[in-house]
Amino acid sequence: MQTMGKWVFRQAGVQHLALEETAVPTPGVGEIVVRVAAVALNYRDLRFINGGQSGTALTLPATPGSDLAGVVVATGAGVTRFSEGDDVLGTFWAGWIDGECPPEARVLGGSLPGVLAQYVVLNEAWAVRAPRTLSAIEASTLPCAGLTAWFALVEKGTVHAGQTVLMQGTGGVALFGVQLARAHGAQVIVTSSSAAKLRRMRELGATHGIDRSETPDWDRVAREMTGGQGVDHVFELAGGDNLGASLRALRQGGRISLIGTLDGYNMSLPSIPSFIGRPTIQGIGVGHRRAFDDLVRAVDTLGLKPVVDTVYAFDQLPAALAHLERGAFGKVVVKVGD
Amino acid sequence: MQTMGKWVFRQAGVQHLALEETAVPTPGVGEIVVRVAAVALNYRDLRFINGGQSGTALTLPATPGSDLAGVVVATGAGVTRFSEGDDVLGTFWAGWIDGECPPEARVLGGSLPGVLAQYVVLNEAWAVRAPRTLSAIEASTLPCAGLTAWFALVEKGTVHAGQTVLMQGTGGVALFGVQLARAHGAQVIVTSSSAAKLRRMRELGATHGIDRSETPDWDRVAREMTGGQGVDHVFELAGGDNLGASLRALRQGGRISLIGTLDGYNMSLPSIPSFIGRPTIQGIGVGHRRAFDDLVRAVDTLGLKPVVDTVYAFDQLPAALAHLERGAFGKVVVKVGD
Amino acid sequence: MQTMGKWVFRQAGVQHLALEETAVPTPGVGEIVVRVAAVALNYRDLRFINGGQSGTALTLPATPGSDLAGVVVATGAGVTRFSEGDDVLGTFWAGWIDGECPPEARVLGGSLPGVLAQYVVLNEAWAVRAPRTLSAIEASTLPCAGLTAWFALVEKGTVHAGQTVLMQGTGGVALFGVQLARAHGAQVIVTSSSAAKLRRMRELGATHGIDRSETPDWDRVAREMTGGQGVDHVFELAGGDNLGASLRALRQGGRISLIGTLDGYNMSLPSIPSFIGRPTIQGIGVGHRRAFDDLVRAVDTLGLKPVVDTVYAFDQLPAALAHLERGAFGKVVVKVGD
Amino acid sequence: MQTMGKWVFRQAGVQHLALEETAVPTPGVGEIVVRVAAVALNYRDLRFINGGQSGTALTLPATPGSDLAGVVVATGAGVTRFSEGDDVLGTFWAGWIDGECPPEARVLGGSLPGVLAQYVVLNEAWAVRAPRTLSAIEASTLPCAGLTAWFALVEKGTVHAGQTVLMQGTGGVALFGVQLARAHGAQVIVTSSSAAKLRRMRELGATHGIDRSETPDWDRVAREMTGGQGVDHVFELAGGDNLGASLRALRQGGRISLIGTLDGYNMSLPSIPSFIGRPTIQGIGVGHRRAFDDLVRAVDTLGLKPVVDTVYAFDQLPAALAHLERGAFGKVVVKVGD
Repeated sequence: MQTMGKWVFRQAGVQHLALEETAVPTPGVGEIVVRVAAVALNYRDLRFINGGQSGTALTLPATPGSDLAGVVVATGAGVTRFSEGDDVLGTFWAGWIDGECPPEARVLGGSLPGVLAQYVVLNEAWAVRAPRTLSAIEASTLPCAGLTAWFALVEKGTVHAGQTVLMQGTGGVALFGVQLARAHGAQVIVTSSSAAKLRRMRELGATHGIDRSETPDWDRVAREMTGGQGVDHVFELAGGDNLGASLRALRQGGRISLIGTLDGYNMSLPSIPSFIGRPTIQGIGVGHRRAFDDLVRAVDTLGLKPVVDTVYAFDQLPAALAHLERGAFGKVVVKVGD
Repeated sequence: MQTMGKWVFRQAGVQHLALEETAVPTPGVGEIVVRVAAVALNYRDLRFINGGQSGTALTLPATPGSDLAGVVVATGAGVTRFSEGDDVLGTFWAGWIDGECPPEARVLGGSLPGVLAQYVVLNEAWAVRAPRTLSAIEASTLPCAGLTAWFALVEKGTVHAGQTVLMQGTGGVALFGVQLARAHGAQVIVTSSSAAKLRRMRELGATHGIDRSETPDWDRVAREMTGGQGVDHVFELAGGDNLGASLRALRQGGRISLIGTLDGYNMSLPSIPSFIGRPTIQGIGVGHRRAFDDLVRAVDTLGLKPVVDTVYAFDQLPAALAHLERGAFGKVVVKVGD
Repeated sequence: MQTMGKWVFRQAGVQHLALEETAVPTPGVGEIVVRVAAVALNYRDLRFINGGQSGTALTLPATPGSDLAGVVVATGAGVTRFSEGDDVLGTFWAGWIDGECPPEARVLGGSLPGVLAQYVVLNEAWAVRAPRTLSAIEASTLPCAGLTAWFALVEKGTVHAGQTVLMQGTGGVALFGVQLARAHGAQVIVTSSSAAKLRRMRELGATHGIDRSETPDWDRVAREMTGGQGVDHVFELAGGDNLGASLRALRQGGRISLIGTLDGYNMSLPSIPSFIGRPTIQGIGVGHRRAFDDLVRAVDTLGLKPVVDTVYAFDQLPAALAHLERGAFGKVVVKVGD
Repeated sequence: MQTMGKWVFRQAGVQHLALEETAVPTPGVGEIVVRVAAVALNYRDLRFINGGQSGTALTLPATPGSDLAGVVVATGAGVTRFSEGDDVLGTFWAGWIDGECPPEARVLGGSLPGVLAQYVVLNEAWAVRAPRTLSAIEASTLPCAGLTAWFALVEKGTVHAGQTVLMQGTGGVALFGVQLARAHGAQVIVTSSSAAKLRRMRELGATHGIDRSETPDWDRVAREMTGGQGVDHVFELAGGDNLGASLRALRQGGRISLIGTLDGYNMSLPSIPSFIGRPTIQGIGVGHRRAFDDLVRAVDTLGLKPVVDTVYAFDQLPAALAHLERGAFGKVVVKVGD
């Protein structure tokens, strides 16, 4: 029997993570086995390990991780979408193919086992073909952060040239947001309380930066940047009272994407001055497989390169999670195989 | 010179309303003169008279009223949409024809003069043909309350048979909401703290009523009424902390219409448990002329009869406003002409 | 081993259909076994049996039939959507869940085995819960004819009250079209060359009928019926040169649904007079599972009863197909079990 | 009284065009007077002059021309959208603001007087602000050709990165189509029977060219270029039997824009093999003012430069029309003022 390494925790808490030796899985009917090359981490992995993932009862022992890039090494009976040797990415939502999210859809590294292992078995419906133009490390950043930005901007927001999109902060979704909005000819305003990060966002393509530590009334300044009309779309990534300012920055009939990758936050919708603009406020929870296929095609056409902060070796997961916790500019990725 | 009566206030406050004698207007280029038959009142008329209408600087003297039914008695040069003798309704938004609301659109009885007069002059673009099947008194209820419900349900919400829509309260928009949702084959849940009003809503077609005074956790009960899936669409007419309950009552991917007829309210968006459902929260501010034409056609096809609570004579405006203030079931209408 | 009856043909042609004895299937991983209660026939079943189904290489022996109602009698490992005893309907498209049709989707009684058998095995993703308010015989008419009408009218056409929809002919899709359009408050014009069938369509709810044998310029008459504006939506079910007339009957910006249940026809798009109206011409090929769930909910809410022409016993399939071939008003259904 | 030059014809036919001296217009209520700087020509101007414009009774004498760039030199009473000195473009459709085209909308140089004059008077609703980044000559190309491409691609087609759009031929709309599709990250295939023009299209950004004179089965080759999936969107600019090939080149659920700038053509919709893909076939007739504002914003953001073939002086209109008739690569523009 072939064995492999897999990260497991038997009690909630990062300190209980252990790299265990276990059997390489074999594919059942309709399943594929993927040799994992890279796993990108998300903040929700930390919450999951710490036992606080919302809406998901933690069943122990558990393996964390949702965003994998790898190669198909075995296929079960009836598999038609993939062959051995195909480079694939997992879908964050297992079973959300297109349209609305069906009740039976589940999350890898959530109610389904996670992917921080050398091999994983997936239903063939839970994977897409990887982009031709990215390394596995780069591609592993797409399933959650990349698709969330794409879904908000393109699938729901139908971004187009000449619009102005505002990104709050400089997290992983905001970085993809800048790159994708620019690739569609839109202007991008970024808010951050770090001048250094604003500089890096401008290098990435952002057309304007607002330093929130110097400009607390950033919504007024953002509105001025659009000639008084207001921005077309805000990525609401901060939460709290911030939503009021987002509404004030918005044009008549504009759009706010509430982005929480499954974890919400308290926020307050303000009164008269901001409300009268007929906004559309849209909750975003990653996205479906068809949109993921669209994103992969776009990445290859555009030559878009995801921003990776640091790559950690497979046995360095705790260090990678510590990095994630103290903040990063770009994705933190665990290199699993070759 | 022909004269007419017109309601005017020279200081903010209902007590300063006076029925004045003034010249009947004549139409300019592209304008029509309408002999007013009926004006339906809205709560915003009270705020306007009291000087508190949001976003609108009150220029005195002023005439209140936005929702008129009447007949065209004169047409200016270049008018092509109407002829003398046509029964018409005014559009709440003057200059919002279709699609997005353009910045130049204004409101009758807001930044434009109101319609509580025996004759009014309107740009021909600010009126639609009245339904064939309603009296002027009934038809006068359509421009604000009727169109708001239609816009939320049909134009934005694409209601269809088998859905469940939840109406908060028993105001004018909620009443139209019940009638229109039922006319499209949807089920309707109404919440109210009055058992008597719930009874009347059921007579109007509502399929379920929840008495909020007896069932404070109405969202749980509403969800049960849909077999646990959640309702498809909530008309958020209460504001405040209520929005949290609305989100809890909603299905995955459901819709909340924030309805305020131009006046907002403080409300809070709740955290995790309700947020993960990818809701669409849509601000509604009445609607455009093309949708109004659609509504008129629907009223005639359906034989839908608006609910009128009480009709007041033209010189009884203060009594009508007092009625509005203490609450009504159905619209309060001022009969102006014959 | 339990055995059952199944219709099989080993050469193309209705005369080669034979009722064979074979083993009752057992469910694999993710599969359900359904005891079939009723199968509704479609014209495409005849073409399939005669070897002419487009785009599908006929692999013999084969079993025809796509539209089944039945009850779950066994579930395989990993099944979560259904339990034994659930009343279900098959989906015409196996694997089209929502949104766009993925390339891997296939058709029961097409590239997948048909359902004219006492038991069938289905992936659990290929079924929906049956409506509570219909018999199995009635419900079996929904998967193809019912869903096609629903998908064109509601999912793609967002029908609403006050619109006018025009149905060409009196086939199965047109009958559902009349019932569903009426249930959403729309008016319906039907064209047919049979006065008797027009009478029955009016009984079913159609608001207007046009006898094409007496009124060859039916498009002109249809336009008059809408006060000159043109109809909002045409179900193009006739093909050929007819599309030109459909465009002439249509309003500015109206919609034509090209409905062929997978088999096309030659048709010509006419020139200037009809083209300038910015039509949307939409090809319809049945629909997806999420819309089917919506339809089932609508049927239960509305109490809609499908029109069944004649019910045949399971061993009378050849007679049922002969009936189909000579024409029916409503669906021809084979009763398989109890 | 100030006078100006204006092109007039008193009989149908280019040979009857005469440059006449007439009074400079003055603005009425709600109107602006524009000093015309440039007028771009369209093929429909030729048809109009030759008396063959579809659906429009030619009233003589008449002035041709629809696409103007100029500067506001006078404003009538009640004008709020513009001030003297504003650079503006006329809207092709006078009175189509947003959403659906209302019946009262008319065309400049169609049922309304044309703009080949040194000064024109327009309702203020029939103009938009010119882009900051283009000369008047460049900007004059936007109202018809530019907006048609934008409307098909962005407003109706919601183009996004990674898609493949196919342009038939190298006319004015196709040129804008290439530039705008590329600006949204899409790939573009162009078909033409001129190798030289295909070269120029590649210089403009087209990713692939197919020489129809060498590759009559261009649809097969186009499909191969997309890895067998089919293209996402075809600009159908050729008409005739070509539509069949367009459908064969299209992916499942793809879009065809029928573009005719108000003049249709005979075309045939083919049978089975192409039909089963659930296409959306959308008639395009230029577009509305809100989309035009969006286009102007996009042009400024992108720095997009329209392709101008040749500029003619105001008194050289007949030579400009002759150029148009024999074909151009880019727009033919008449320089009217400075």
